[in-house]
Amino acid sequence: MAEEAPPIRFGILGCAEIARKVSRAIILSPNATLHAVGSRSLDKATKFAASNGFPTHTKVYGSYEGVLEDPEVDAVYVPLPTSLHVQWAVLAAQKKKHLLLEKPVALNVDDLHKILEACQSNGLQYMDATMWVHHPRTTQMFQFLSDPQQFGRLQSVHATFSYGVSPYFLENDIRVKPDLDALGALGDTGWYCVRAILWASNYELPKTARALHKPTYNNSGVILACGASLSWEDDKVATFYCSFLTDMAMDIIAMGTKGSLRVHDYVIPNQEKEAKFSTSSNSDWVELSLGWAPNPSEHVIYNDLPQEALMVKEFASLVGAIKYNHSKPEDKWAIISRKTQLVIDAVKASIDNGLEPVEIKA
Amino acid sequence: MAEEAPPIRFGILGCAEIARKVSRAIILSPNATLHAVGSRSLDKATKFAASNGFPTHTKVYGSYEGVLEDPEVDAVYVPLPTSLHVQWAVLAAQKKKHLLLEKPVALNVDDLHKILEACQSNGLQYMDATMWVHHPRTTQMFQFLSDPQQFGRLQSVHATFSYGVSPYFLENDIRVKPDLDALGALGDTGWYCVRAILWASNYELPKTARALHKPTYNNSGVILACGASLSWEDDKVATFYCSFLTDMAMDIIAMGTKGSLRVHDYVIPNQEKEAKFSTSSNSDWVELSLGWAPNPSEHVIYNDLPQEALMVKEFASLVGAIKYNHSKPEDKWAIISRKTQLVIDAVKASIDNGLEPVEIKA
Repeated sequence: MAEEAPPIRFGILGCAEIARKVSRAIILSPNATLHAVGSRSLDKATKFAASNGFPTHTKVYGSYEGVLEDPEVDAVYVPLPTSLHVQWAVLAAQKKKHLLLEKPVALNVDDLHKILEACQSNGLQYMDATMWVHHPRTTQMFQFLSDPQQFGRLQSVHATFSYGVSPYFLENDIRVKPDLDALGALGDTGWYCVRAILWASNYELPKTARALHKPTYNNSGVILACGASLSWEDDKVATFYCSFLTDMAMDIIAMGTKGSLRVHDYVIPNQEKEAKFSTSSNSDWVELSLGWAPNPSEHVIYNDLPQEALMVKEFASLVGAIKYNHSKPEDKWAIISRKTQLVIDAVKASIDNGLEPVEIKA
Repeated sequence: MAEEAPPIRFGILGCAEIARKVSRAIILSPNATLHAVGSRSLDKATKFAASNGFPTHTKVYGSYEGVLEDPEVDAVYVPLPTSLHVQWAVLAAQKKKHLLLEKPVALNVDDLHKILEACQSNGLQYMDATMWVHHPRTTQMFQFLSDPQQFGRLQSVHATFSYGVSPYFLENDIRVKPDLDALGALGDTGWYCVRAILWASNYELPKTARALHKPTYNNSGVILACGASLSWEDDKVATFYCSFLTDMAMDIIAMGTKGSLRVHDYVIPNQEKEAKFSTSSNSDWVELSLGWAPNPSEHVIYNDLPQEALMVKEFASLVGAIKYNHSKPEDKWAIISRKTQLVIDAVKASIDNGLEPVEIKA
């Protein structure tokens, strides 16, 4: 896409809380513009646009269909409850809208396949809205993990994501409602842990998932906290823990044969414009094992655009390449989204199956 | 024990590498003195004493029995291969020597019971030589974990300990020999992970251990790397990973309902005289979830004496109280040593039993 190409015009389906953050990201992204927002209520959409500083040119619709029928909308961002994803994502694809889909992308991989097939058959770009993989820190960390001298081969990775929710959330949020987001914390926070593990293993799909004893459920049977171990054919191993019930935690500890990496705010950095991680390489004891040498290193990355704007920018760039340069969609994003969902499904199956190991079938 | 009481006189059985560090700790400890060292070879013991700066008054014996027969020895430090612990620890107790026993303390809990019973029936202090629990940082971290407002209830804890060993170690070290240290990495590095998990759970013994897929073995069937999950009757969960095959790693991540704690060098601090950890409490998102508030806090603890000297000091203090004040042995150390061994045994049983869950019986 040439620098001077017009920005990609986004439509947003619904007025979810997360849409406030992503609409800001669309506004911040240099190759995107916030063209339309739709809600089932015109009044709600109008207030949402006004209270979130939408540009005056942003169109406001009293239905999701309004956004999808708008021929000027290039791409839609879909932050609807997960149970509605298939319906609206497939319809969006039929209306030739490129798709930025909030996570968890689907209730299961069969549903995701319907979405991916709709995008593929219509020549559309798909991307899930997992923001952290677009942070420049993530790129630097991945370079470290890929370095045979500094990190070596991955042997173990542990990931967490939790945030302590309010009593109101536990009663009312869509993420704890079986008819809206049936995967609960596994879909909401576990999604990131699984993506982190896949990322650390260079997206090599594990062979087996086994849930840890024992998940916490709400009265409706929705998962509020759980963990799992994942394993591959070789001897590397992964564990994760995801929850709505502990204070904020977002850790990755990746242990390699030559080094290790730690990050403690990988999902959303403590601060918007700088982010840290630490590495250790080829460490040994000092004399008498009184300490380490070398000591671990801290790294700080400064970024002008926040990770969600970088996500939008990357997505819009791919859409622009299709729209203006006749490029094909980049299928990497569908592939890693599907792998993430496959692992989530296997963990869920293990939970539903007495914590027995479940084979992950590619 | 009064301040002016004479120092406790230590004997060391054997010239293990770790004995170099502990002998220095005995010298550094204000209430201990290095009275004797014994090896199967008088020449080896003499050279060991000379090359490690032992005081000129330290007696050198050409046998372990020499140390045990010395009536002036109050306490012995036993860093022998694990398979020799029962024999020498029990004999030491029969000779009325208080016992500081290197970990892993035994090949299984039945062996440990023989040692503990010998100490108990002779009115002797027992302590395993797990140094990090004596660091002032550990005390501060435990205070944080015990704070209902800052940490709340433990929900998840993950621990690691690994160090990358040399090819020479993998061929020759006692820790990879089935007849000397049959527990391999599980006994050597997993011991710390299990102790860390017990510590974080206020020493509440888990109900079940399940090894992770899949352990790495050497050609003799000794474990070089493995992991496990531990669970209790409530829904908290623990995981750990221990290895000889990755670069240095010593992490604890403890997640509570109100806060979380991280430490990355808990076994041996990066530096001898200062140590760090970080905590997070009651964190929430800032507006639009663009960051966290409050951010995690870093804590730095400065210590004059290294943790191994503080261990010796604590042990010698307990021995002194028995010797000079007719106190009874402090049984806390036997209790947590036994719990650690019980968990190690259950993980080993799970490994040996196709990774099935194994009940941990108190």
